Amino acid sequence: MSLGDWRRRIDEIDRKLVELLNERSRCALEIGRIKQAEHLPLYQPDREREVLENAEKANPGPLSDAAIRRLFERIIDEAMGSDGAGGGKK
Amino acid sequence: MSLGDWRRRIDEIDRKLVELLNERSRCALEIGRIKQAEHLPLYQPDREREVLENAEKANPGPLSDAAIRRLFERIIDEAMGSDGAGGGKK
Repeated sequence: MSLGDWRRRIDEIDRKLVELLNERSRCALEIGRIKQAEHLPLYQPDREREVLENAEKANPGPLSDAAIRRLFERIIDEAMGSDGAGGGKK
Repeated sequence: MSLGDWRRRIDEIDRKLVELLNERSRCALEIGRIKQAEHLPLYQPDREREVLENAEKANPGPLSDAAIRRLFERIIDEAMGSDGAGGGKK
């Protein structure tokens, strides 16, 4: 496979990643709504730990567990719309 | 759907994300090998810009374009194994 072929493969993966990251964000926003309705704390460190552990457990490489952890820390961080909008794009 | 249902949905998405992120990393490592063999620069800012633009263009929300950009900056950063191993897990 040529450089261009690999890049097209990456572009395809990236489109799937964008889709999944947004689907994840929709779930996180739903969870936020439920927590607010039930007066539960929005930040639950035990659950965050569980998410990071699950991601590491599922990791076959070549990414290191540390890389997966850093990636999921950002994913968790962005999921609930730290931009403040709380659901709307931009 | 209950809190637990949404969390199970997130766990499922996360397993797919781990898989795709590793698949992406394998592609990036292949690209790195080709570049080395062909004496091309490893860092190509134009391609990085293209990747970020593609991700933003594919973004339907609820994640903001800024969030997608931050996520992909990290994804690009980790893809080639910044831990130094260059291919091996851990």
